[in-house]
Amino acid sequence: MTGFFSSRWVDAPPHVTEASDDRLPSGFRAAGVAAGIKPSGGLDVGLLACGAPDAVSAARFSASGVLAAPVLVTQERARLDALRAVVVNSGNANAATGRPGLDEAARMQGAAAMAAGVPNDQVAVASTGVIGVQLDGQKVVNGLLAANARLSPDGAGELAEAMKTTDVLDKRATLDVELPSGRVRLTAQCKGAGMISPRFATMLCFVQTDARLEPETADLLLGVCVKRSFDRVSVDGQLSTNDTVVLIASGESGVAIAPESEDELRFGEALDALLRQLALLMVRDGEGSARVGRVVVHGGHPHGVERAARAVANSPLVKTALHGGDPNWGRIAQAVGAALLGTAPLALDIAIEGIRVCSGGMALPVDDAALQRAAAREEVEYEIGLPGEGAEAEVFFSDLGHGYVTINAEYTT
Amino acid sequence: MTGFFSSRWVDAPPHVTEASDDRLPSGFRAAGVAAGIKPSGGLDVGLLACGAPDAVSAARFSASGVLAAPVLVTQERARLDALRAVVVNSGNANAATGRPGLDEAARMQGAAAMAAGVPNDQVAVASTGVIGVQLDGQKVVNGLLAANARLSPDGAGELAEAMKTTDVLDKRATLDVELPSGRVRLTAQCKGAGMISPRFATMLCFVQTDARLEPETADLLLGVCVKRSFDRVSVDGQLSTNDTVVLIASGESGVAIAPESEDELRFGEALDALLRQLALLMVRDGEGSARVGRVVVHGGHPHGVERAARAVANSPLVKTALHGGDPNWGRIAQAVGAALLGTAPLALDIAIEGIRVCSGGMALPVDDAALQRAAAREEVEYEIGLPGEGAEAEVFFSDLGHGYVTINAEYTT
Repeated sequence: MTGFFSSRWVDAPPHVTEASDDRLPSGFRAAGVAAGIKPSGGLDVGLLACGAPDAVSAARFSASGVLAAPVLVTQERARLDALRAVVVNSGNANAATGRPGLDEAARMQGAAAMAAGVPNDQVAVASTGVIGVQLDGQKVVNGLLAANARLSPDGAGELAEAMKTTDVLDKRATLDVELPSGRVRLTAQCKGAGMISPRFATMLCFVQTDARLEPETADLLLGVCVKRSFDRVSVDGQLSTNDTVVLIASGESGVAIAPESEDELRFGEALDALLRQLALLMVRDGEGSARVGRVVVHGGHPHGVERAARAVANSPLVKTALHGGDPNWGRIAQAVGAALLGTAPLALDIAIEGIRVCSGGMALPVDDAALQRAAAREEVEYEIGLPGEGAEAEVFFSDLGHGYVTINAEYTT
Repeated sequence: MTGFFSSRWVDAPPHVTEASDDRLPSGFRAAGVAAGIKPSGGLDVGLLACGAPDAVSAARFSASGVLAAPVLVTQERARLDALRAVVVNSGNANAATGRPGLDEAARMQGAAAMAAGVPNDQVAVASTGVIGVQLDGQKVVNGLLAANARLSPDGAGELAEAMKTTDVLDKRATLDVELPSGRVRLTAQCKGAGMISPRFATMLCFVQTDARLEPETADLLLGVCVKRSFDRVSVDGQLSTNDTVVLIASGESGVAIAPESEDELRFGEALDALLRQLALLMVRDGEGSARVGRVVVHGGHPHGVERAARAVANSPLVKTALHGGDPNWGRIAQAVGAALLGTAPLALDIAIEGIRVCSGGMALPVDDAALQRAAAREEVEYEIGLPGEGAEAEVFFSDLGHGYVTINAEYTT
C-alpha cells in the first residue's frame, strides 16, 4: 500500500485498498463550483447529495462556546441520523454573525435541499473561512444552482477543492473495503489547514460509504474513530467555531453491517485508519512545517496521561524544538510538569525515538549524535512514562516554524 | 515619574518614587560573579545577604510537577518566613537531575550560608538555565567565595546580571516609599525572558525592603501581589520548573508596618505596582516582540472570565495577530469559545482599544482605518464582555513573532 497511507503511525488494514478510480460510493454525487466568495476566484461552494431515501448518518461538531451559524442550524434543524446532503462554502465561516448569519445558513440549507432533491432537514450546512464577516448567501444560492447541474459520482475532487482555505495538501481518499459480507466503498473529503490557517484552523470532514449501517452503528463508529483521530491532533491548540464531521451511508452496496459482527469490526478498522491518516495529513499540512510529532504517555491515571500528552503537543517550546530537529527533552519535562501541578518530585521517564533520555526524573547519559539524528526525522515519536500503569494517551502534533508566523502575523487584512 | 513605570497599565502610586541612587535597602548586600557555568563567561552566580538577624520573609514557587532541585531544597530545608540569603545561578536550571541534583542544590545552600554568614536554613536556592544537565556545584562554591568578597549594598546590579539567561531588558528597580510612619526602601531584581527563552521561560524575582513586617503580613502581601502580577502574564503559556519569588524584609529602617494599617495599604500598593511593572517587563522582553497585549474579561462567572482571559492570552493565533498589528478579532471570539465549551450561542462583546467590534455575538460595522491604527499600538487592550456581572480577569501577554521561532527552533544545542 502506497499513496494515501503514508504515516508509519497508521496501520492500513490488509482488507483495505486504495481504489484505482475516483468514484464516490454508489448513491452519492458531488460537485464544487466557484461562487465568488473567495477573493481568489477558486472553487468555494460544494454540494454532496445522496440519492438513497433511507440513507443513515452520524455527525460530530465543535464544542466551542462560539459556534458558527451553520453548525447551530445543522444541530437544530437537521436530522443528524438521516442526512442525505451536505452544502459547504469556503472563504467565510459565517461565525459571529448573529441573527443574519443564522438566516443565511438556513437559506443555504433550503437551497441545497432543492439542489440535492431532499427535504430541508436532511441537509447539513458547513462553512469555513473568515470569522465576523456577514456571508452573502445569494452567492451560495447561485453557486448551488450551478453545482446542481454538475453533480456527479466523480465529483469528490471538486467537493474537496471547494472546502479548502489555506490547505496545501489534498486530504481525501477513495478506499475499497473487503468485508466478510462483501465489498463496500469508503470515501472521505477533509479540510484542515492546521497551523497555517490565516483565519482559522477549521476542520471539516465528510465521509461516504455504500455499506448499510444502522443509525446507532454509524454514530458509534464515527464517535470512536473521531476520538482516535481528529480528537488526537494538535495544530495550534485552537478549537474552531466550525468543526464538523458527517458520515453518510447510502446502503446501496447491499452489504449490511450488523452490530457486533465481523463486518462491523472490519469496517470500523477501515474507518479508523482513514480518519487517523486524514488527521495526520491535517497536522502535516502546515506551511513551513518540517516534522510531525507523536507523543504517547503511559501511566496510572487516565486524566493525568491525557493532560500530559496534550500539554506536550500544545507546547510552543516543544513545537519549536521539533521544528528545529532539536532533541531538547527538557522542554518535554517542563510541559509534563506544568500539566501535573503539585506532583513533584515526579518519577518521569522520557524516550525520543526509543532512546531513553530521562529515567525516574533524572537525566541519563546519551549518545548525542544518535539522539540528534532521531530528533531530525520526518516523524518523531516521544514516549513518556508516568508512575503507575493501565492508562495511555497519544496526540499527534505539528511543529512551529516561521511559516506559521509569516502567514498568521504578516498577511494582515 | 519616568523610567521604571513605563506601562500605562501600571499606576505608579504618588507616594512611590524611583531612587536617585542604586543602593539596596538597609541591611542588604549583594554580589554577582562569573563562575564559568555560562559558556559566554558572563556573570552566573549571585548572592544576596541580609545582616538583620530577625529578618522576615515570604516566598512563592512554581507549582509544576517537575520541580527543579533548588526549589525542592528551598521548600524542604529552608525557613520560608525567615530567609536571610539567596544564592542564584544561571546557565543551568538543575532540573530533572535526580538525587545528584538535590545534593548539588544542598551544597549551594551550605556554601551560601557560609558566605552570607547565616544558618543553612535561612538560605533560598535558585537556578535558571538548561534543564536535564547536571550542575557542577563546585563552580558555584568557588563563585560564592568570590561573591562573598564582593558583597556590597550597591550589588543589586551584579545580582540581577547574574540571574539573566536570554533576558535583554534590565528588570529591576530601586524605589523609595513614603509611608505614614516613615520612608522605606523597596528594591527588586527579576529575570524572565518570556518568549525568547531558548531553554526555559524561568522567572525569578527577589524583593528587598528595610520595612519591618510581620511574617504573616509579608506572606499576605507577597501572595496578593504575585497573583496580580506574575500570575497574570502569558509569555508562551509555559510554566517553568524553577519559578521562585522571595521577599525579605530587614526591618532596619525602623518603620514597622502593622497589619491592617494605612502603612500596610500604602506598602502593598507600592509592592503591587513594582511587581506588576516587572511582570510587564518580562512580557515585553521577547526577542522579535513588537507589542504587548492586555485582555480584560468581564462577566458573571469567576472561572469563566479567568478561563477566557487565559485562552485569549495563550492563543498563538491571537499572539501572531498582535505581532502583526492585525485587528483580527475573530481569533479572539474563537479563543473565548474554545475556553467556554458548550455555551453556544454566546452573547459575546469584544472591543479593541475601546472600539467595539462585536456585540451580543455579532460583528459590528467599524471604522477599519481607526481599528488598524488601534491594533498597531505598542500596547493593545482587548476588552471582552461575557453574560452576567461581578467577575473580572485580566492577563498581560506577549506577541508571537519570528524571533521566538528563530531562538527556539534554530539555535539547537
